[in-house]
Amino acid sequence: MAKNVKIPVGILGATGMVGQRFIQLLERHPWFEVAWVAASERSYGKTYAEAAKWKMKTAIPARIAKMKLSAAEPGGSGASAAPKVIFAALDADIAREMEPAFASAGCAVISNSSAFRMHPQVPLVIPEINADHIKLIEQQSWHRQSGGFMVTNSNCSVMGLALALAPLDKAFGIESVFVATMQAISGAGYPGVASLDILGNVVPFIKNEEEKMEEEAGKLLGKLKGREIVPASFGISAHCNRVAVEDGHTESISIKFKKKATAEKIINVWREYRGMVDDLKLPFSPAEPIFYDERVDRPQPRLDIERGHGMTVSCGRLRPCTLLDWKFTLLSHNTIRGAAGAALLNAELLKSKGYLE
Amino acid sequence: MAKNVKIPVGILGATGMVGQRFIQLLERHPWFEVAWVAASERSYGKTYAEAAKWKMKTAIPARIAKMKLSAAEPGGSGASAAPKVIFAALDADIAREMEPAFASAGCAVISNSSAFRMHPQVPLVIPEINADHIKLIEQQSWHRQSGGFMVTNSNCSVMGLALALAPLDKAFGIESVFVATMQAISGAGYPGVASLDILGNVVPFIKNEEEKMEEEAGKLLGKLKGREIVPASFGISAHCNRVAVEDGHTESISIKFKKKATAEKIINVWREYRGMVDDLKLPFSPAEPIFYDERVDRPQPRLDIERGHGMTVSCGRLRPCTLLDWKFTLLSHNTIRGAAGAALLNAELLKSKGYLE
Amino acid sequence: MAKNVKIPVGILGATGMVGQRFIQLLERHPWFEVAWVAASERSYGKTYAEAAKWKMKTAIPARIAKMKLSAAEPGGSGASAAPKVIFAALDADIAREMEPAFASAGCAVISNSSAFRMHPQVPLVIPEINADHIKLIEQQSWHRQSGGFMVTNSNCSVMGLALALAPLDKAFGIESVFVATMQAISGAGYPGVASLDILGNVVPFIKNEEEKMEEEAGKLLGKLKGREIVPASFGISAHCNRVAVEDGHTESISIKFKKKATAEKIINVWREYRGMVDDLKLPFSPAEPIFYDERVDRPQPRLDIERGHGMTVSCGRLRPCTLLDWKFTLLSHNTIRGAAGAALLNAELLKSKGYLE
Amino acid sequence: MAKNVKIPVGILGATGMVGQRFIQLLERHPWFEVAWVAASERSYGKTYAEAAKWKMKTAIPARIAKMKLSAAEPGGSGASAAPKVIFAALDADIAREMEPAFASAGCAVISNSSAFRMHPQVPLVIPEINADHIKLIEQQSWHRQSGGFMVTNSNCSVMGLALALAPLDKAFGIESVFVATMQAISGAGYPGVASLDILGNVVPFIKNEEEKMEEEAGKLLGKLKGREIVPASFGISAHCNRVAVEDGHTESISIKFKKKATAEKIINVWREYRGMVDDLKLPFSPAEPIFYDERVDRPQPRLDIERGHGMTVSCGRLRPCTLLDWKFTLLSHNTIRGAAGAALLNAELLKSKGYLE
Repeated sequence: MAKNVKIPVGILGATGMVGQRFIQLLERHPWFEVAWVAASERSYGKTYAEAAKWKMKTAIPARIAKMKLSAAEPGGSGASAAPKVIFAALDADIAREMEPAFASAGCAVISNSSAFRMHPQVPLVIPEINADHIKLIEQQSWHRQSGGFMVTNSNCSVMGLALALAPLDKAFGIESVFVATMQAISGAGYPGVASLDILGNVVPFIKNEEEKMEEEAGKLLGKLKGREIVPASFGISAHCNRVAVEDGHTESISIKFKKKATAEKIINVWREYRGMVDDLKLPFSPAEPIFYDERVDRPQPRLDIERGHGMTVSCGRLRPCTLLDWKFTLLSHNTIRGAAGAALLNAELLKSKGYLE
Repeated sequence: MAKNVKIPVGILGATGMVGQRFIQLLERHPWFEVAWVAASERSYGKTYAEAAKWKMKTAIPARIAKMKLSAAEPGGSGASAAPKVIFAALDADIAREMEPAFASAGCAVISNSSAFRMHPQVPLVIPEINADHIKLIEQQSWHRQSGGFMVTNSNCSVMGLALALAPLDKAFGIESVFVATMQAISGAGYPGVASLDILGNVVPFIKNEEEKMEEEAGKLLGKLKGREIVPASFGISAHCNRVAVEDGHTESISIKFKKKATAEKIINVWREYRGMVDDLKLPFSPAEPIFYDERVDRPQPRLDIERGHGMTVSCGRLRPCTLLDWKFTLLSHNTIRGAAGAALLNAELLKSKGYLE
Repeated sequence: MAKNVKIPVGILGATGMVGQRFIQLLERHPWFEVAWVAASERSYGKTYAEAAKWKMKTAIPARIAKMKLSAAEPGGSGASAAPKVIFAALDADIAREMEPAFASAGCAVISNSSAFRMHPQVPLVIPEINADHIKLIEQQSWHRQSGGFMVTNSNCSVMGLALALAPLDKAFGIESVFVATMQAISGAGYPGVASLDILGNVVPFIKNEEEKMEEEAGKLLGKLKGREIVPASFGISAHCNRVAVEDGHTESISIKFKKKATAEKIINVWREYRGMVDDLKLPFSPAEPIFYDERVDRPQPRLDIERGHGMTVSCGRLRPCTLLDWKFTLLSHNTIRGAAGAALLNAELLKSKGYLE
Repeated sequence: MAKNVKIPVGILGATGMVGQRFIQLLERHPWFEVAWVAASERSYGKTYAEAAKWKMKTAIPARIAKMKLSAAEPGGSGASAAPKVIFAALDADIAREMEPAFASAGCAVISNSSAFRMHPQVPLVIPEINADHIKLIEQQSWHRQSGGFMVTNSNCSVMGLALALAPLDKAFGIESVFVATMQAISGAGYPGVASLDILGNVVPFIKNEEEKMEEEAGKLLGKLKGREIVPASFGISAHCNRVAVEDGHTESISIKFKKKATAEKIINVWREYRGMVDDLKLPFSPAEPIFYDERVDRPQPRLDIERGHGMTVSCGRLRPCTLLDWKFTLLSHNTIRGAAGAALLNAELLKSKGYLE
């Protein structure tokens, strides 16, 4: 019977765009159940339906709609006491203060924020490619003191890229990567990008995004050696642009390998890739982490973004590069694979490995 | 008095999008006057207003609206005889047959088509950077036989790039260039891109575009040696994408130089650049061929595309590249600087150099 | 066992946008199974995957992808023989010739085309509101001669409107209706609307659309009296516009009733409405044909279009009208409720009533 | 010589979208010259270029870029003293306090805000149709006390409509009007509409907009009788929607007249209309206040919005209405004719009539 008891989880930043995705994706999750929602001070005491400007295409789950927003504090009593598993969808500035408070209080903080991604004791995890990094948790002082800890997922722009690079790195050794992104507006939250800025336009700038892509890629593909992550050493140069797309980051990528790779081999490597967690049968783990599309003009965000319920990364247009070795196009869902779905998959990994007990 | 007599010009493909731009830009041109318009067979005999689905934001010039469309043949008599100066805005397949027919008949064919751009005796010209290439005309058999000739401008995606690279090549020597484009829908003509393909979407494929960019860049920045163009030898890799923008190609560029360049020097080189034709005072020559914008999130197509009446290329976001040396963003108007305006500037150059007499 | 045998159906115009929707919606349908696909001559003999430019967001069903396209003729033998139930997604001009040929050959032709909608013996059906109109089939000469017949669904712009009006007409009596539409691009098929025409634009004209709305509304809400439909007699004036929306027609409506209606009563009438076919438990029949949304700025196509799997019509913003009595906003899915889903629901009705045996 | 001295004007709310339009349109104005710019407190002391997120497609005029922002107070000394002619581009809440302060201090306040439009002593003016309403100024207590006064222009959605209705009312007598708008995002200012709300979407709600349209139409077309405006008595019902268009409100209109009107007569009335101020030769007064476009699918915002430098209202698609008498489509530029240009034309009228001396 205990099998059927779901783990209660809380959501910090529950009314924002990523918070809404958490609620949407956790509805009917086999392992987790939303038990607590918190948002900024002006929402305390309101119901979720009153406080959130719900922008998902499915209705607010009825149970959540009626739920009262709690103060964003680990303490509290009764209904307002935070559960021990917390999904955090906070702005970096707020996360920097709030996430450690929850970890100190003994919570498992599964964060989508950038605040602690590059912290040497905080794992930055995409389960398929670096599930073993979660052992860093043991190094966290929060963990030693309260049992709480923090695990993060990467920036939405680098998530799909890292996933596509991981098996190639293993097979051929990556030497350098050039990437130019065309990123969706949902990545900026709500209200986020003003319509006057993006309708019929391209904005060739997203604050700190290129820096995040370049540094997070190294940590994601790095190796856990003893008590630390040794970052991958390939060179990477990112150009980040915002385009008038709702969901889905498209990326133009060139890549140089250490060993010789043919198109056929690269495509095979992607198609056969199952990642480190295939045996765990995690609910949010897609059957195919990477899909290679043979069609000459794909992937495209409007058509391909829902593949694998938004958890599969789509690649296409593999062709020789006159400067590096190969070039291709990549598409990944920025608010599912790149944010809420990423955190959920991390939570599932943590549960499977016994960290949420 | 003869000074005030304008040169009569004809337009092949006058009803298409580039043809419409020619008509819009030639209205009130101090040197040229539209005297003849031709389009596909189904339009013969109709007035221009009847035959063209006019999509410009200014009204059809009244004089042109009433003009009858001629057959697309160099011969003809009376009103339907083609003038000696022809702007050609044709699809490549049609251009391949039609443009030589006009050149053979003694016309100066100033073409926007890709058909003959890479022909060894046909100059591919951006006046600011390679005005001297027009001497290739002397090598053309058409010229020797009839006095007619052909001059082309480049693909819209490489035009702005070549202009921004030219002074840098001179100052620092270019070794290699990465470019990822986000191209406007107007580049595909009308009806061109289906709205279902591009609304809220990115299409990571434009047929033959990457090939054109890579090969035309070499010829544009090449040197005329004796009777031929020796192409520039830098490496270039292009990724071409279509985005939901009406006018203006935005490009993310990384570049490696032979000599050391600082940001300050690069910006100065751009700002001081006046090009080879500054002394000719050509009407369509912009005061600044290249504008460097200091603002962190510029250039943007919706805001910056009209700079220099669509003839100035805007650069911005110059910053170090972790793989090559520098990276920046570039914007140019694809149907003015990249098509009709380019051909017009070529015509002005030819006139100044005595080729249209 | 026979219970599990699905009815084989064919699709005319299977590669177009509505044809693609048929294939998408019929995948996993409990009663019907695609057995035959036909398209224009240039597709004969190709596989469906080769012939169709698939634009749905789900993948082509694998079984259909491999299916060979048949000639669009009722005859044929073996695999290419058309089944007895045909969904027709043809342009009106082609439908005018082809649909009668299939009906004459004994097929049940369930058509989305406008060609025969106003034919006095052809029922124009929305099952919830006028399921009884299918008795018109008995009047069709095709039916008497071959057993074949034709049933149509309405234009996408009037479908949602008629559904919202039907219960109001019953409760209060409709006297007159104003409607201004903002219609999605998918209603025009593929390639359909050129991107240069609609990006950042409104096109205040859709050929014949206002005429169709005005005349079809009367037939849809008409009464079957003996052997004919007596059209409803209310006045209706339509303004049709195209906007940059992918799926979902939004409509601004004003309405005058014969009897006094309050907002509360109108909303109740909508909410309690179940339509004529609720007892039949048709698979595509939505639990709620009409949903009234209390939120001040809803319905919106991007957020509300998938309600009831695209089969529920959303209403909102009911408020007094200074000229007529009440005004409100309506949204319906133009390619599901307004086209392929409509035809499918008609087919389910026909099957339930024994017409497909 | 004094002829050449321009009148110094100030702009309240100078950094917002309408403020930016004022600055753009006043550049090179023959009569007025920007001498003072004010914005919210956080901008005081900054230069205009620092404080404004400039979103116009032309560059910030160099002289204005360097201008220091003043406190938004009528007093002040030296450079920061407000001039006697003030264009106000303020939110209604702020305008309610600030505009009377300037009028009390002796300034001519030419306002684009809604705060005082319906005030019985404040004229709501479109010079072509009700220039005589400015006599209301004499009734203002501000005017009697300090010589200052206030004049307003209408909401952007009703401006074009009122202009198109005015000559029809004179010719045929208007009985009732139904209007459904599709309004551009620029009408909401910056940041205004969130891109997630409008990309590929329609928002069928703009707060208070329908109320403003309905009440302002009556005052605009009303008659000055003695000391007050007697509003026009026709019925009007408005539906307001936001669409993904940058500039230009498109409106679907049905209209009922008191006298019989033919299409030919209506079009003639529009074409011949010159309005009340034609003889004054005001710089911003368009040669044609109303343009009727014969093309079946026009006017369209992307193509027709710049007509008459944004001051001409475009009408098209005149056709019979089954409920009222006639229906047509209208387009007007919401930030030029509907806001900054409207205020400027009002200022020109005031100057011509001696109110700015």
